[in-house]
Amino acid sequence: MNITVQKFGGTSVADTDKIKNVARRVSQTRKKGEHVVVVISALGDTTDRLVGLAYEISPHPREREMDMLLATGEQISVALLSMAVNELGYDAISFTGAQVGIVTDGAHTKAKILDVKVGRILEELEKGKIVIVAGFQGVSLDDQITTLGRGGSDTTAVALAAALKADVCEIYTDVDGVFTADPRIVPEARKLERISYEEMLEMAATGAGVLQLRSVEFARNYGVVMHVRSSFSEDEGTWIESDERMEKAIISGVTDDSGEAKVTVFDVPDRPGSAASLFAALSKANINVDMIIQNVSEGDRTAISFTVGKDDLRKAKEISEAIARDLEAGGVTVDEDIAKVSLVGAGMRTHPGVAADMFNALAENGINIEMISTSTIKISCVIPARDVSKAVSAIHKKFGLDKGVVMRA
Amino acid sequence: MNITVQKFGGTSVADTDKIKNVARRVSQTRKKGEHVVVVISALGDTTDRLVGLAYEISPHPREREMDMLLATGEQISVALLSMAVNELGYDAISFTGAQVGIVTDGAHTKAKILDVKVGRILEELEKGKIVIVAGFQGVSLDDQITTLGRGGSDTTAVALAAALKADVCEIYTDVDGVFTADPRIVPEARKLERISYEEMLEMAATGAGVLQLRSVEFARNYGVVMHVRSSFSEDEGTWIESDERMEKAIISGVTDDSGEAKVTVFDVPDRPGSAASLFAALSKANINVDMIIQNVSEGDRTAISFTVGKDDLRKAKEISEAIARDLEAGGVTVDEDIAKVSLVGAGMRTHPGVAADMFNALAENGINIEMISTSTIKISCVIPARDVSKAVSAIHKKFGLDKGVVMRA
Repeated sequence: MNITVQKFGGTSVADTDKIKNVARRVSQTRKKGEHVVVVISALGDTTDRLVGLAYEISPHPREREMDMLLATGEQISVALLSMAVNELGYDAISFTGAQVGIVTDGAHTKAKILDVKVGRILEELEKGKIVIVAGFQGVSLDDQITTLGRGGSDTTAVALAAALKADVCEIYTDVDGVFTADPRIVPEARKLERISYEEMLEMAATGAGVLQLRSVEFARNYGVVMHVRSSFSEDEGTWIESDERMEKAIISGVTDDSGEAKVTVFDVPDRPGSAASLFAALSKANINVDMIIQNVSEGDRTAISFTVGKDDLRKAKEISEAIARDLEAGGVTVDEDIAKVSLVGAGMRTHPGVAADMFNALAENGINIEMISTSTIKISCVIPARDVSKAVSAIHKKFGLDKGVVMRA
Repeated sequence: MNITVQKFGGTSVADTDKIKNVARRVSQTRKKGEHVVVVISALGDTTDRLVGLAYEISPHPREREMDMLLATGEQISVALLSMAVNELGYDAISFTGAQVGIVTDGAHTKAKILDVKVGRILEELEKGKIVIVAGFQGVSLDDQITTLGRGGSDTTAVALAAALKADVCEIYTDVDGVFTADPRIVPEARKLERISYEEMLEMAATGAGVLQLRSVEFARNYGVVMHVRSSFSEDEGTWIESDERMEKAIISGVTDDSGEAKVTVFDVPDRPGSAASLFAALSKANINVDMIIQNVSEGDRTAISFTVGKDDLRKAKEISEAIARDLEAGGVTVDEDIAKVSLVGAGMRTHPGVAADMFNALAENGINIEMISTSTIKISCVIPARDVSKAVSAIHKKFGLDKGVVMRA
């Protein structure tokens, strides 16, 4: 059976007119003979509205009840989309996550998918129906309603595509695909036709907001071909698939992220275990640390800097200050006026000199680099926040990303 | 285990302040040592808003999808109420109808309860938790979400009380209980302390809006003691229980109903089967006929009058006209300007003369009776709509209902 999974986000189903538009899109695919499974998010601002109600009632609502509440958002969407598809003369049926058997662990508000049961979906697809599944939600082994956390609907779509062995998992969004840089910053940025999972992972991790990291990881692990495209046009978007299938560009794109802040613990006694105690405490508090730098020590003292999401900054500062006291360090400073620019490309594995070119591009524009971190296919630099547009444009130009795909030698 | 089931309607949970009020009420009962199961409806106008969205999308949404949509209303309420109870320091847990196992048939939008599984509720009650269950909804044997139709939350509450062998099923509402007449019409109307299932059934069937017929039937069939009371006061309301337990009043109350219209098929050939063919056709169209009168025939012709809900009038008229043509009757007239006044009381079984007194009360006030129908504990008269207030007041006074309970001799 040829199956296409199509995922539409909250902005694509913000009102009843937009829902009708999605219904047309879905029906067109069915008309071409494909079997279609649709995953959708809650209508526009529904989730925010529900969260607002919860906080009117309690400053710390239990996560189990929060999941009970939030799961209604997607249930409303799937029922309405199903009605809209039926109205166009196609046969649709909607399901909650629990009904189709999106089985998760019991970690409310950030559950992980353990299993996807596809029997019920296949049964309805065989009858010719378009199956519409609530994204973002599942059911735990003890029959509690769970939600998957941010970007959960993308993950639902990819997990269903994997379990159904779908031809493709189409992610519909309000942009045309994945770009070589944010087009709001670099007007010459080009849409990428294809990108590998690894590169997409690095791009998502370094600021490309079009896809959530988790869904790309899931797609890579299960070999699901993804296609990121616009809900408002028929054009092809960006295909995300395994490295082997594609011609290899040296560089895929430049990303930027202004969502992090830098914390520095200074005058730390340079003893084994200092860094370990700091990062163990942060990890215990569930704080995600991104970049870490430890200075070359001056005498018997050193400084440790790291970046965290701005949301976690207050907590990270408190913890760092406590640890600084324990270690008898000098103190803690924080800097929120930073940005991270990153260059991603599978080709840099085999092309030395990419890092040097990137640093040069920044230096030529008088931009100071505060931190550097590298992986085999990515280089990230922390720079002052005010320089982020200039930096992205300079790097984009330096690597000729505006001129077309730079192939590997 | 002492269990109290408490049901709150949509007006009791219209906003977050009202939800907090319900949480206090529920917690007080728990504090007294009772185990509490709460059944609630959707917040205020949520259901209307969802229905509005559905009709923006489709003039005839499928009933299965309608149930999927509407069931979210109660799910939102139970999650929020659970948060509010937790906030007060009591332990609460919310469930959908499907989760607790309110098993229904597959008749979407008007499903009937087949079975109630109480294992999961009892387990949570034993842990000391307040269990909050979504009213109005269930799950069919093939795992579809269903809703119970109008007044469904009352039925959920009574069904749970029966299955849990609860001490009482408290129905909280915005009035103080069941009255001898509508207090907006008769200011002297008294709140009834007790009423039998049979009388409550007749009162509900003839216009007392405080309880839905189905829930009272369910309570009678399973011997569930109901207590109708105000969510805004601590006063006792009206207890509804079996006839044997109470002293017997001759008359319980006067009800009125302006929701019906009268249809008359005139000049019907007086042959066997004429009436049968008419009412068979109406029943096939799912139209609920209330009162029926066939005139004494004049020569070989007769007239058949019946009342139906105003919602069904258009359809009832069309069907009657078709049947009238088949029967070669004279034609069909309709009258929407009617009202039904009814007198309900278990004592009238053994007290002849009640009907005569009622007719006299109407005659003394110059009110014309158009139709009469009786049961063993009820007399209903159809009168002109403009006379309804005068009629209710006159009957209420005639039987001394303002003066206190009239006991059987």
